[in-house]
Amino acid sequence: MSISFWNMPKPFVNKHVSVFNFAHIFFVCLTELTVTNKTRTRAVSLSNGSVDVLDLLQGWGSGVGTYDDFNTIDWVREKSKDRDRHREISRKRRQSITALLLSVSDAFSGWLLMLLIGLMSGALAGGIDIAAHWLTDLKEGVCLNGFWFNHEHCCWNSKETTFQERHRCPQWKSWAELTVGVTEGASAYVVNYLMYVIWALLFSFLAVFLVRAFAPYACGSGIPEIKTILSGFIIRGYLGKWTLVIKTITLVLAVASGLSLGKEGPLVHVACCCGNIFCHLFTKYRKNEAKRREVLSAASAVGVSVAFGAPIGGVLFSLEEVSYYFPLKTLWRSFFAALVAAFTLRSINPFGNSRLVLFYVEFHTPWHLLELFPFVLLGIFGGLWGALFIRANIAWCRRRKATRLGRYPVLEVAVVSLATAVLAFPNDYTRMSGSELISELFNDCSLLDSSKLCDYGPLAKGGEPAGNLSEGTVGQAERPAGPGVYTAVWQLAMALLFKMAITVVTFGMKVPSGLFIPSMAVGAVAGRLLGIGMEQLAYYHHDWDMFHGWCSPGAHCITPGLYAMLGAAACLGGVTRMTVSLVVIMFELTGGLEYIVPLMAAVMTSKWVADALGREGIYEAHIRLNGYPFLEPKEEFVHKTLATDVMRPRRSDPPLSVVTQDGMTVEELEGLISDTSYSGFPVVVSPESHRLVGFVLRRDLVISIDNARRCQEGIVGVSRVIFTEHTPVEAQGAPPPLNLRAILDLSPLAITDHTPMEITVDIFRKLGLRQCLVTQNGRLLGIITKKDILKHMAQMANRDPDSILFN
Amino acid sequence: MSISFWNMPKPFVNKHVSVFNFAHIFFVCLTELTVTNKTRTRAVSLSNGSVDVLDLLQGWGSGVGTYDDFNTIDWVREKSKDRDRHREISRKRRQSITALLLSVSDAFSGWLLMLLIGLMSGALAGGIDIAAHWLTDLKEGVCLNGFWFNHEHCCWNSKETTFQERHRCPQWKSWAELTVGVTEGASAYVVNYLMYVIWALLFSFLAVFLVRAFAPYACGSGIPEIKTILSGFIIRGYLGKWTLVIKTITLVLAVASGLSLGKEGPLVHVACCCGNIFCHLFTKYRKNEAKRREVLSAASAVGVSVAFGAPIGGVLFSLEEVSYYFPLKTLWRSFFAALVAAFTLRSINPFGNSRLVLFYVEFHTPWHLLELFPFVLLGIFGGLWGALFIRANIAWCRRRKATRLGRYPVLEVAVVSLATAVLAFPNDYTRMSGSELISELFNDCSLLDSSKLCDYGPLAKGGEPAGNLSEGTVGQAERPAGPGVYTAVWQLAMALLFKMAITVVTFGMKVPSGLFIPSMAVGAVAGRLLGIGMEQLAYYHHDWDMFHGWCSPGAHCITPGLYAMLGAAACLGGVTRMTVSLVVIMFELTGGLEYIVPLMAAVMTSKWVADALGREGIYEAHIRLNGYPFLEPKEEFVHKTLATDVMRPRRSDPPLSVVTQDGMTVEELEGLISDTSYSGFPVVVSPESHRLVGFVLRRDLVISIDNARRCQEGIVGVSRVIFTEHTPVEAQGAPPPLNLRAILDLSPLAITDHTPMEITVDIFRKLGLRQCLVTQNGRLLGIITKKDILKHMAQMANRDPDSILFN
Repeated sequence: MSISFWNMPKPFVNKHVSVFNFAHIFFVCLTELTVTNKTRTRAVSLSNGSVDVLDLLQGWGSGVGTYDDFNTIDWVREKSKDRDRHREISRKRRQSITALLLSVSDAFSGWLLMLLIGLMSGALAGGIDIAAHWLTDLKEGVCLNGFWFNHEHCCWNSKETTFQERHRCPQWKSWAELTVGVTEGASAYVVNYLMYVIWALLFSFLAVFLVRAFAPYACGSGIPEIKTILSGFIIRGYLGKWTLVIKTITLVLAVASGLSLGKEGPLVHVACCCGNIFCHLFTKYRKNEAKRREVLSAASAVGVSVAFGAPIGGVLFSLEEVSYYFPLKTLWRSFFAALVAAFTLRSINPFGNSRLVLFYVEFHTPWHLLELFPFVLLGIFGGLWGALFIRANIAWCRRRKATRLGRYPVLEVAVVSLATAVLAFPNDYTRMSGSELISELFNDCSLLDSSKLCDYGPLAKGGEPAGNLSEGTVGQAERPAGPGVYTAVWQLAMALLFKMAITVVTFGMKVPSGLFIPSMAVGAVAGRLLGIGMEQLAYYHHDWDMFHGWCSPGAHCITPGLYAMLGAAACLGGVTRMTVSLVVIMFELTGGLEYIVPLMAAVMTSKWVADALGREGIYEAHIRLNGYPFLEPKEEFVHKTLATDVMRPRRSDPPLSVVTQDGMTVEELEGLISDTSYSGFPVVVSPESHRLVGFVLRRDLVISIDNARRCQEGIVGVSRVIFTEHTPVEAQGAPPPLNLRAILDLSPLAITDHTPMEITVDIFRKLGLRQCLVTQNGRLLGIITKKDILKHMAQMANRDPDSILFN
Repeated sequence: MSISFWNMPKPFVNKHVSVFNFAHIFFVCLTELTVTNKTRTRAVSLSNGSVDVLDLLQGWGSGVGTYDDFNTIDWVREKSKDRDRHREISRKRRQSITALLLSVSDAFSGWLLMLLIGLMSGALAGGIDIAAHWLTDLKEGVCLNGFWFNHEHCCWNSKETTFQERHRCPQWKSWAELTVGVTEGASAYVVNYLMYVIWALLFSFLAVFLVRAFAPYACGSGIPEIKTILSGFIIRGYLGKWTLVIKTITLVLAVASGLSLGKEGPLVHVACCCGNIFCHLFTKYRKNEAKRREVLSAASAVGVSVAFGAPIGGVLFSLEEVSYYFPLKTLWRSFFAALVAAFTLRSINPFGNSRLVLFYVEFHTPWHLLELFPFVLLGIFGGLWGALFIRANIAWCRRRKATRLGRYPVLEVAVVSLATAVLAFPNDYTRMSGSELISELFNDCSLLDSSKLCDYGPLAKGGEPAGNLSEGTVGQAERPAGPGVYTAVWQLAMALLFKMAITVVTFGMKVPSGLFIPSMAVGAVAGRLLGIGMEQLAYYHHDWDMFHGWCSPGAHCITPGLYAMLGAAACLGGVTRMTVSLVVIMFELTGGLEYIVPLMAAVMTSKWVADALGREGIYEAHIRLNGYPFLEPKEEFVHKTLATDVMRPRRSDPPLSVVTQDGMTVEELEGLISDTSYSGFPVVVSPESHRLVGFVLRRDLVISIDNARRCQEGIVGVSRVIFTEHTPVEAQGAPPPLNLRAILDLSPLAITDHTPMEITVDIFRKLGLRQCLVTQNGRLLGIITKKDILKHMAQMANRDPDSILFN
């Protein structure tokens, strides 16, 4: 027995092989008879290795050159395949007008795909916004004009003038009004409370039920999995149509249920599903895993673009946070798709304000350099919260996996949702949805604002400590906090604690759940609190040194809304470790270069603080939790190990299983295949010399031998299998040999045993390798797979190397 | 004799070796005695290949591990060196507080560097703006309050109210007023004309003289060279302090001389010089070519940031257009540096409007979907102009190189500058500087505007074809063009032709010259003309079908300034082939998402049209013209050749020069070195087996043998040179062997001969290789260098393979 260096989940290995039915076999044999010869001659005449040939083999429909589920793709091979396809089209272009048109349509198919993804994602995002808004309002009451109107639309044509009164238009009935007929008092409160909790439970139950029943992949934010998929992993069905449908519906339900979650991460998943589904329309993208990943990178940009109305931020998010392979062509295309999506969303106009962005803010007061101090404080808070949240959430998720908790996901969601609803209703700031809360906190108080947060006392009453107020203009001046503000501060403080606790248990449940909005909400509350504190400090103590020179009495110098925005950015930065993309998203939200410096200060501090407490962002932590084979491009490998320390077989292991280029029979090969579970075998000149010739994949070998045994005449167990260029003449009476050079990869990458692991890791990352052979003085010594590298990295970081589950 | 597959410019080879003086030798020998043993033990005990050891060797001061001028760096080695350094610091960190502080300061040195670059570049850009503005005005007249005031500052305190009159304040005297005492009439015109031409000649002569005398590298835009440097090429002095000083001064002169050039490209060069100079302050960046290139990438973002006041656009420009290796860390740092620079520039406030951006525009009219048609037309124009310009300019530069023209650069500049001045003065739109022109063309006419371009006829005169004008509001309505507009149109048309012709001969002269402003000027003129045309069409023919429904009579529906902006973007896109970064720069200039769709339409069309006529942008074309070894990351290699077709030696060539690991004497090695000119030699087990052990660089070999001969006892010509791990025991009487394992690269990358070239090119690009060995069935067969690849690519594209001049 030899060691299992390239282990593959057994159940998947033979699935594709076993689906061969009779008709299929017949077809395969027919085509093979005509194709094999052509293939072989081409392979020989062009001496072009296996790459081109693999492509031809694919024509057999035999599955050569495709991948099993939960396996890693070979980027080099995929890109070669695409170049072959492209060459073929370019070659034909000069032959006929049809081919020319085909070539042109091929060139533009990428753009068409982007257009489709943008339109579809924009439309879906708009639909989700509208539906979530309606369902959220349904928890409070119903519209008499038609139950499908949300509160705002219901009161659209109301004649009341002020916003406050218009909000209470007669067409809109709260549940208490409808059932017990009163709008105020204890009974009305109890009825409304009850209805709120019941609706919340219903929505969340429906969401988790749909996820469990129809599309288990639709849960969570999806970003960790998308990162892994983009790095080259295969998870079949993760971006399928069922996932799309169920995720879209359950996202609406989950958001409406009032759970502490957002729709931003899931929107990225939805956009990627759209991307993946549209890929099936074009052969170029359907058949090539590498090309499809380019499209998915663009789709994730689209997701953020529609989530925030920030197309540039979306592209940078995809570049910085999600993508693995992001060529410049993709940059340009993602930008196009992100714009299309943003404009589609705007024309649907779900926020009803014809703004492209989710939280439109406009601040009028410039900030002062001294304010950088509280801004940095917010950054520190954000960093601490981010690091703490990640630890707590991961610990909770581990517990869910390890204990009985994980066996009752529906119950878990119901309990959390009940707790959320019961605790959230009494507090205005937790009762409203996350995005409404953020919107309100970002808002700068104008004089007409009726919100509690803007309930400031009258200007310059007698006896107030403020002295000379003649310079201050009305509405611009700093004012003392009124009773409303004090209530709001209390409620916000409670909301902060509540949100911090509930988000930890919410993220990771079996419902679609994004982290952006809850993280931002936590930060926005903290920021607003600090902002109000600073404002009142400036009002009551403007004679302090720190306010001297820039905050004269009666002037308006502190903008609490700005503090909220910075707090939100800092917390989001702490949790996700986004940097440039976060600043650009926030910049697109506020639309001014003015606040970029405070933003950078807050986000940078937050990242540094959070990194000091733990290197991983929430997405990387979840990737590791799930054991996906993800080679983090940002993490530097800093250890001094060599390739020889990582490669298999180890010193104590049995020798490497190899195939010789002309010394093995079909039977021997079949024995090797059944004795081992490796995904591939190196081919050497002879077992003695161990000089490397090429590499052959198990999957290809199994399929080819199978085909040959069924279709090629004279192939028996003792037939020699050869991988050389020229088929040697066999002795008289011996069965004809089976030449499998067509499936041999003649250009496997090999490194020497002295190659430092830092360089090896770099090579794996940059070239997107699946495995790499190790040689010493020209002799084959061993093999390193991506999984070996991940295990080694885990070991070096004192983590459990067995946490990496897949190939 | 063997072939010259890795040719190196001879003059440089021994320069560094020959500078050893006696004191140096003494020092080297002293340290070597103590270091060599340590080195060797470490090398053996850690078995870590050559990388770590090379770093130690550097301590000798012997130049091992550095590069010659006009050579390509080895990214893998540089990055390994940096990781070693980093590991060393991390290891020491736990030992003392000083080391901990050092480690922290090391971590923050990158940020400090960015801050310094941002501050310095911002300050320089501000200074250049102010000085160029002053000198430009000096061509027209002088300020009596002090000659150092420019026109605007001179009239700052003037009491005239309208802008027009304030511009003619009594303190500002034109040259005619000063010398002949009249302001109007033929004689005044002649005197002003003469003075204009004389100043222009003087400035341009000074510029070219300074460049020729002090810093030949200061000419041109610098972007092609910076691209090449960032890809790993070494051009000593290109980013040095002399280049910085001279480029800054001559840039001011060149811009002031009125030549058709801009300051944007050169500002990138200036910022990169700042970056390179500040790198010398930090060991981390001074000693590591790869780390330094990360800084330079950020610096080029800074350059664009200060050129346009567009920090995000600058970062994307660096990412899309200039950089080769752009890790995420650099993205974040460039963003920081770009912001610092932009804010430094703003606090200097050279444009006097406290705007961050060069051309601030604010449009009030939304665009209509039907307008996309003229926008696409502008894109086509931009693409055609871009492709045409590149061809004409390259043809002209080739001619300059090939003929006697190239020998008289000063004369050339003088003639072009004379022609420019003589032709430019009579036309208002060519007399003003490029950025003024663009500013004026982008501007939307308000009612108070006194420019000729805004001289529209009165509203709704009797007899005008416009019908019912009651709906139009004054100042918002479409109006007929007045005589001023007609004059302007004529002058603009002349200016367009003039700019198009003169820019072709100007770009590439021996003065600092950017292309952004001239390209944008051409586009802006064309766009404005089209815009005025559309506007008048809409005015006179608003009953046409195409205007139906969106352009009612008397409404203001066409914004000529927007057309100018789109034209500018299209032309710049056609010339440089920038995409996302261009759109983002323009978006930052205009500050609204409103116009992103027209911008994308124009830029995309322009890129497609230009690409159809020629794949290369102007920078790539100039890189190729100069024969720099630049492996274009955007260009796909589409041919079906194999590594064996490209590697040296060819079939007809003598065999590969190799070193055996233990079979050669010092004399033999010296013979090999003097007989060949290769930059390095593969080390094999034995000449028969040709099994690869490692790779040794010529430079390291020369230095080591030299050192050993001088310092190590008993090393004579017949001493054996060995590269094995354990030094074998020599026979009695034989001289002691010289073990050079320390300089052996034990992890050279090797590919098989069957590797398709597309994959090989990819590997070279992604890993930043300098050379790669080729094996067949485990035996060493040949070598491929970056130059071989570039030559092969040139050959495949039917270009002259000998155009690649450097290694």
